[in-house]
Amino acid sequence: MKLNGKQESVDAYVLRAKVANSQCRRATTGTERPKDSKIRENVKFVFDFEEGDGKNKQLLGGKGCGLVEMTQIGLPIPFGCIITTEACRQYYSKNKTLPDGLMPEVTEHIKCLESKTKKGFGNAETPLLVSVRSGAALSMPGMMDTILNLGLNDSVVEGLGNVTKNRRFAYDAYRRFLQLFGKIAMGLDEAYFDKILETAKKQLGVELDTAIGTDELIKICNEFKEVIKKETGQEFPQDPWKQLQLAIEAVFRSWKGKRAIDYRREFKITPKMADGTAVSIVAMVFGNMGNDSATGVGFTRDPGTGENTLFGEYLTNAQGEDVVAGIRTPEPIAHLKKEMPKQYEAIEAIRQVLEQHFHEVQDFEFTIEREKLYLLQTRNAKMNATALIKTSFEMVSEKLLTKEKALLRINPDLLEQIFHHRIDPSVYAEPIAEGIPASPGAAHGKVVFDADEAERRGRLGEAVILVREETKPEDIQGFFQAKGILTSRGGKTSHAAVVARGMGKPCIVGCRDLQIQTNSKSAFFKGQKIVAGDVITIDGATGLIYLGIIPTVEPHFGPELSSILRWSDEIRTLGVRANADTPEDAMRAKKMGAEGIGLCRTERMFNSTDRLPIVREMILAKSAAVRQEALDKLLPMQKNDFKIILKIMAGFPVTIRLIDPPLHEFLPSIESLLTEIERLKDVQLGLKQMEMISESVKISLEPSLQKFIPNVQKVICELSEIKKDDPLDELIRKKEELLQKVRETTEVNPMLGHRGVRLGIKYPEIYQMQIRACLEASAELLNEGVDTQPEIIIPQVVTSQELKRVRRWLEEIKKEVEIKHGIQLHIQFGTMIETVRACMRAGRLAKVTDFFSFGTNDLTQATFSFSREDAENKFLPLYNELKILIDNPFEVLDIKGVGRLMKITIDWGKKGNSKLKLGICGEHAGNPRSVEFFQALGLTYVSCSPYRVPIVRLAAAQAKLRELMLNTDELNNPDYPFNIFS
Amino acid sequence: MKLNGKQESVDAYVLRAKVANSQCRRATTGTERPKDSKIRENVKFVFDFEEGDGKNKQLLGGKGCGLVEMTQIGLPIPFGCIITTEACRQYYSKNKTLPDGLMPEVTEHIKCLESKTKKGFGNAETPLLVSVRSGAALSMPGMMDTILNLGLNDSVVEGLGNVTKNRRFAYDAYRRFLQLFGKIAMGLDEAYFDKILETAKKQLGVELDTAIGTDELIKICNEFKEVIKKETGQEFPQDPWKQLQLAIEAVFRSWKGKRAIDYRREFKITPKMADGTAVSIVAMVFGNMGNDSATGVGFTRDPGTGENTLFGEYLTNAQGEDVVAGIRTPEPIAHLKKEMPKQYEAIEAIRQVLEQHFHEVQDFEFTIEREKLYLLQTRNAKMNATALIKTSFEMVSEKLLTKEKALLRINPDLLEQIFHHRIDPSVYAEPIAEGIPASPGAAHGKVVFDADEAERRGRLGEAVILVREETKPEDIQGFFQAKGILTSRGGKTSHAAVVARGMGKPCIVGCRDLQIQTNSKSAFFKGQKIVAGDVITIDGATGLIYLGIIPTVEPHFGPELSSILRWSDEIRTLGVRANADTPEDAMRAKKMGAEGIGLCRTERMFNSTDRLPIVREMILAKSAAVRQEALDKLLPMQKNDFKIILKIMAGFPVTIRLIDPPLHEFLPSIESLLTEIERLKDVQLGLKQMEMISESVKISLEPSLQKFIPNVQKVICELSEIKKDDPLDELIRKKEELLQKVRETTEVNPMLGHRGVRLGIKYPEIYQMQIRACLEASAELLNEGVDTQPEIIIPQVVTSQELKRVRRWLEEIKKEVEIKHGIQLHIQFGTMIETVRACMRAGRLAKVTDFFSFGTNDLTQATFSFSREDAENKFLPLYNELKILIDNPFEVLDIKGVGRLMKITIDWGKKGNSKLKLGICGEHAGNPRSVEFFQALGLTYVSCSPYRVPIVRLAAAQAKLRELMLNTDELNNPDYPFNIFS
Repeated sequence: MKLNGKQESVDAYVLRAKVANSQCRRATTGTERPKDSKIRENVKFVFDFEEGDGKNKQLLGGKGCGLVEMTQIGLPIPFGCIITTEACRQYYSKNKTLPDGLMPEVTEHIKCLESKTKKGFGNAETPLLVSVRSGAALSMPGMMDTILNLGLNDSVVEGLGNVTKNRRFAYDAYRRFLQLFGKIAMGLDEAYFDKILETAKKQLGVELDTAIGTDELIKICNEFKEVIKKETGQEFPQDPWKQLQLAIEAVFRSWKGKRAIDYRREFKITPKMADGTAVSIVAMVFGNMGNDSATGVGFTRDPGTGENTLFGEYLTNAQGEDVVAGIRTPEPIAHLKKEMPKQYEAIEAIRQVLEQHFHEVQDFEFTIEREKLYLLQTRNAKMNATALIKTSFEMVSEKLLTKEKALLRINPDLLEQIFHHRIDPSVYAEPIAEGIPASPGAAHGKVVFDADEAERRGRLGEAVILVREETKPEDIQGFFQAKGILTSRGGKTSHAAVVARGMGKPCIVGCRDLQIQTNSKSAFFKGQKIVAGDVITIDGATGLIYLGIIPTVEPHFGPELSSILRWSDEIRTLGVRANADTPEDAMRAKKMGAEGIGLCRTERMFNSTDRLPIVREMILAKSAAVRQEALDKLLPMQKNDFKIILKIMAGFPVTIRLIDPPLHEFLPSIESLLTEIERLKDVQLGLKQMEMISESVKISLEPSLQKFIPNVQKVICELSEIKKDDPLDELIRKKEELLQKVRETTEVNPMLGHRGVRLGIKYPEIYQMQIRACLEASAELLNEGVDTQPEIIIPQVVTSQELKRVRRWLEEIKKEVEIKHGIQLHIQFGTMIETVRACMRAGRLAKVTDFFSFGTNDLTQATFSFSREDAENKFLPLYNELKILIDNPFEVLDIKGVGRLMKITIDWGKKGNSKLKLGICGEHAGNPRSVEFFQALGLTYVSCSPYRVPIVRLAAAQAKLRELMLNTDELNNPDYPFNIFS
Repeated sequence: MKLNGKQESVDAYVLRAKVANSQCRRATTGTERPKDSKIRENVKFVFDFEEGDGKNKQLLGGKGCGLVEMTQIGLPIPFGCIITTEACRQYYSKNKTLPDGLMPEVTEHIKCLESKTKKGFGNAETPLLVSVRSGAALSMPGMMDTILNLGLNDSVVEGLGNVTKNRRFAYDAYRRFLQLFGKIAMGLDEAYFDKILETAKKQLGVELDTAIGTDELIKICNEFKEVIKKETGQEFPQDPWKQLQLAIEAVFRSWKGKRAIDYRREFKITPKMADGTAVSIVAMVFGNMGNDSATGVGFTRDPGTGENTLFGEYLTNAQGEDVVAGIRTPEPIAHLKKEMPKQYEAIEAIRQVLEQHFHEVQDFEFTIEREKLYLLQTRNAKMNATALIKTSFEMVSEKLLTKEKALLRINPDLLEQIFHHRIDPSVYAEPIAEGIPASPGAAHGKVVFDADEAERRGRLGEAVILVREETKPEDIQGFFQAKGILTSRGGKTSHAAVVARGMGKPCIVGCRDLQIQTNSKSAFFKGQKIVAGDVITIDGATGLIYLGIIPTVEPHFGPELSSILRWSDEIRTLGVRANADTPEDAMRAKKMGAEGIGLCRTERMFNSTDRLPIVREMILAKSAAVRQEALDKLLPMQKNDFKIILKIMAGFPVTIRLIDPPLHEFLPSIESLLTEIERLKDVQLGLKQMEMISESVKISLEPSLQKFIPNVQKVICELSEIKKDDPLDELIRKKEELLQKVRETTEVNPMLGHRGVRLGIKYPEIYQMQIRACLEASAELLNEGVDTQPEIIIPQVVTSQELKRVRRWLEEIKKEVEIKHGIQLHIQFGTMIETVRACMRAGRLAKVTDFFSFGTNDLTQATFSFSREDAENKFLPLYNELKILIDNPFEVLDIKGVGRLMKITIDWGKKGNSKLKLGICGEHAGNPRSVEFFQALGLTYVSCSPYRVPIVRLAAAQAKLRELMLNTDELNNPDYPFNIFS
């Protein structure tokens, strides 16, 4: 390793340290080691930085390992040692008492530290102060306790003043120590200390701590000791050894403090990932010993942009906590170059060393004590998506990372950040309400409460946000034209959420703060009234809603990302397709790198305004002949849809799913019809009364009765579409007929109702029309020289009998189309696996199909007997909160239930048909954690929303890499960045 | 075998037959046998009655075996032979041509027949006529073809006239033969023959066939031959051998005739059960040769009552078809004793022989030809439940049957006949409509359209039939008081059906002929108007509805049934419990022999009129405190319910299921509230208008306007509950508030909604109240010396986390109650297995439970993703019709889907807890076919409706017996009475 000149001084430092250490070893060889317990015999609890194993985070903690590693590669680290997590575990298993051998071993190491630093612990002449810090295998920032300046007492503080020739500094350190120790080791509420400090400052008339003089600090220290005694009933221990023991116990205790436990639960940190905390004891260095001292934090690269430059901040004459506290504004690290050029160069050199050693961007802390540079900590830096992608790409070029490691360090979910507009992070705005973030991206527009109006205004080029209680399939045209969707009901998998994600539009759902007054075309957000036309901004990534226009920033696609995705494609073995229902979706899917369409929902094609009336005709048909007439009109439309999509996806498979939802989804709701009928009857009544009153008026009427007239007129005005001469009776009769039909088709549990293939069996002509449309489209394209690969898939199947019947239709129609076009068609035939019975009959279903596609949305509902919408609105949040279920099973595949069922299905299915292709097209396909499971299951492909295709390409590559590593230890290392446990 | 004197003549007959046969054998030994085909070498197609194997129904057909058996035990059977079903199968496999060797073999056997009968086939001197009949392994009455009098032609007919000295008889036989042969063998429409016959009778001026003279018969025969030639283009074949071949082919063809195929599909007859038909060729005997001849049918015991007496009917001077045709009324067989005492005694003797041989009640046909008695057929008699039970019991006493066989011959489902009132079978009435029979029994009463009114009138002692579109849990009090329930919607497992079956009340559902006009309190049955108070009779066994009172007959419980059930209990190993929610149910369950309650649905206790308001208080509570208040009121009520039930079931387990349905089931529906609010607003408007008009009236009003006043008054009258001074605004506001709450709790898919344990987790205080009520009840009873065995079961579980939480509550409350009552409680804790995830997690669930109970209703819904109500109304009938599903999976457990899942669950569950008890409490528990599967699964108990307990006790015994027989061939014999395939 060839470094620049500055490194020399680093090397010199290391040499010095090594000599000191070997001297120390020699010095302690002769000391007596107590042999007092069985545990003691086998276990070593304390390691010097020079001797520890810097890879063993489980034993030494993440922070400890960083110190050990840095010491051992020769970076300037203060001397110190680490108490292992094993000691912490024994502390808890021994009912919160320190293991017998621990303190003697600590004493031994402190002696060694004294020898290396040539200082004395509790010695006023050459005072050795130490920090006592927690550090678990996984970083839990701020969750556990740290004590600085330990070793000070009434006599040592004076010695420190002498040695440093700075009495104020010494007492300032003492009062900081007293406060930390009193709070952490002795359990006294911090408020007692704050109050004393505030009172003193008030009396002195100063605002900053730094303005307090030495004498006042001495007084404050005394008051601190008094309050400790008064409130805890115990004297502040003047014995540094006693201090040390209490501090170690306090750090151990903080492992099971409420904050730490909550944090571990929140971030799903299991004992396997981190079990107990280590304790580092480090000789104190001071950045606040004058203007030749400083403290700061640095990043080896810019964590916001990924640029390969030193990034960080520092404060002169300050301690680490001052940087964090925000009382003084830190300087950018570039300024250090002028202030302390030598030290700056050392840091620049260290930046290289750190990256060369850790092969990861580092976030480190440093202190300069009287011109001498020390590193106090290093860890992997947290970065945003842009920085992660840029550094991944560049560190491969720099040979710091292999492509594989570069891919593994990017959390695929973060990619979502860069595919959508975001609220400009530099702008602060007060949200007016909050909902469930359902589809990321930010958008602003005029509030519109009606899908039709959203469509109309949208077409006119207005930016609109569609605001609804909930949405229905018939609102789809409004979706297309809206910039964003906001609903007051529903969860992350409600109709609005699913459709919006599919379209990549911002969406917020289940906004309980929102109350819509449908009739009056207005809404209340926590009491604030919004009327149609008011402008709001929604942020689908956070669920926040703002009044007015909040600036947003554009999504950014760079060449680095393209490279990352190309590497992913080289590595992954799992196919990635997209769910796409429209030509727009298909274009997007192709752009995002999808290798085909895994799910094309044909019913969505029925929802456009020009088709819905024909679809209704079909549903309401009183005879098969009338139904066929409507279907004949739909056939060319659907054929054309298929042609366009198949053409876009030329060379790739397109899985066309025959109609799935129950027919009543295409009809108006009972409530809307009832309202409509009521209105019409009101008009009728109004008109009749008006006539009667008009009669009376002729004969001169009591004026008060004339009130009726404007009332009635008002009713008629409101319903201006209806003219007085309209045959109202006829209109009402028709609506009532429709209502009757809607009532007939209405179901108690539509999710489990007359849908999917059950509909196809009942009305064969519908499925036959769709099959014909697909085959005709394919045949015409083939004759135009376009390579089409249509696949037909059947929803909601429970028995092979259903499949056999539809397959027979398919084969009959195929023959007809082949003859008509003089061509051979190759159609794959598959079944959705979305009912549990399909899982149980997988062997049979496999015999009559070419492929399965798991519909994990419905399968999850059926497995749990949870209706998605009801569950997410009613009890799932509580279940997650109580940890009855760890995840929302509609977002993260439930491996132990649904996954188990999938495994059984695949095993049986493969027995029935060894060539069976296996896909999944539920929303879980877009979830990286679930993708890893799908890789393990041996699926052929996953099919997700077009917007998630890049995410899944990366996730699939990671899944493959992890699979390859399964036999190595790396996967089991909980500290591995972005591993499946994190 | 010691028989009476008459038997001698039978024996003599047999001896004669045997001699004739051996002579025949000798006579044919020397004849040349053609060796023309390979098949011929190995297969014998034709068997004489004397040589066939009477046990091999698959080969010789049921009817053929009867003839063979009877011949071989020496009963007087005409000579004949049988063509095997193998010949029929070869006929079809050879593209509908007779197998090569068949006709030569037939010829050989006819020669033998000639020799035995000393007659000649086609010989006019000693004419041998034969019948050619079909006969498959399973009886398919009337489904296949038979030809009589074959062998007649223009010359033989004259000979027959000579031999019998009865030319009219000969031509009558000829015209019958021509008609049958023309129709069956030559495919001519029967109508051609009927027309000729009718024309002739009209010309003669006679009504009966018997009144046609010989000359006219000759003329008719000629016309028959002419029409055959004209319409088929072929001459009627005068050659008897040609006739025979065509007849055999015709019988084979009829196996795949439409009627036969439909029949086999209807009765689920698979090829394994019957594959092809045999053909019997029997020498004709004639019951119509004068007054010394007769024909009839007999039963060895009375099939209506089971009495051990000869039962039957006969006609003198008639052929078999005349008995069936119903032109002459047959005489009771007792009359034969006077008319032909010798023959009567012979039949009496044969009755004994038949039963001694077949060990089953026989249904036989006989013919007396000139005083000589012949048996033509015998088969197991079809009996009603009463007869089956009586004969089973008595035949055991008579040592004709073992107890085991006696039990196996009773179809358990038939028992249902005797537990309910039935329409008097002797009364004929025209139904006015038909629905789906949902709960058996007949009842009459006044039509009531409202559950509350049903309750009120019922309490007053009126017999009422509750008629509704559909029912809800809140209608329960109306159920209690109604004699029967009739709904226009819903299927066999709708709420109405389930509850009615549970109560054993007659119920018809899904009556599409019924249109209820709720507002006007009337209904139309196919256009016939019924108003509230009109009397109807419903028959829940047939689904028929009658106007007025139709007489019914009482259910009959005899000592024979008790014995049968006692034997069942001795044999079965499967426990039988009842589902019972009320003390009445529990009493009934005990009476029916239930060994405990396997499911006590606690929510049903919430539905009584005095409790529903408190339950609503609980649901609508805006705070936990208010909710607790309501629960405190419910606690003593529910405790008391439990006490009564536990006391009735002292010594037996009672499984108490904590509340399951979603809370909105206890609230009024949105539509009813909307209607109510609309009505209230109308009243408000009406009152205001009325005031205004009254004002006007003072100043003298144009008379035409006064029309308003009565209108408004009418509105107010209709809503007489509301007084003018009522604070209407307040009332409307309250209703609107309730509506809001109902809207909030309403779910898209209530079946998959916020119910079961999910509700318990959200509102712990509800489950805790129920647990406390149960434990307090048990403790109080234990202190009274009553042995209680409460078990608590949790519905809708998906993860062990839910169970752990509830179990913790249980243990806490148990401690409290134990201390309070100074007693030790032993409570079993279990989970429903009714979600698929529970199946997948069975191993885990088993670790925290003592027992599982399969809720196969919900599990079936979840497995199929079928909502029961929607499926049965919308597509399930079509699925059954198309044979996509053979059974309704809500009635007969779907072994391949749900059953497979149960198997997996049990395997995993037992691994988790080897002591796990396993029950099932879905409706399938009451289905005998499913019970057999549950036995095979190794369940501990099944729990069904109290009314089905006796049925299941028998079914469980049968299941056990079949299990014991599994290694024998009997089970695989499709003819075994009531075996699982039948």
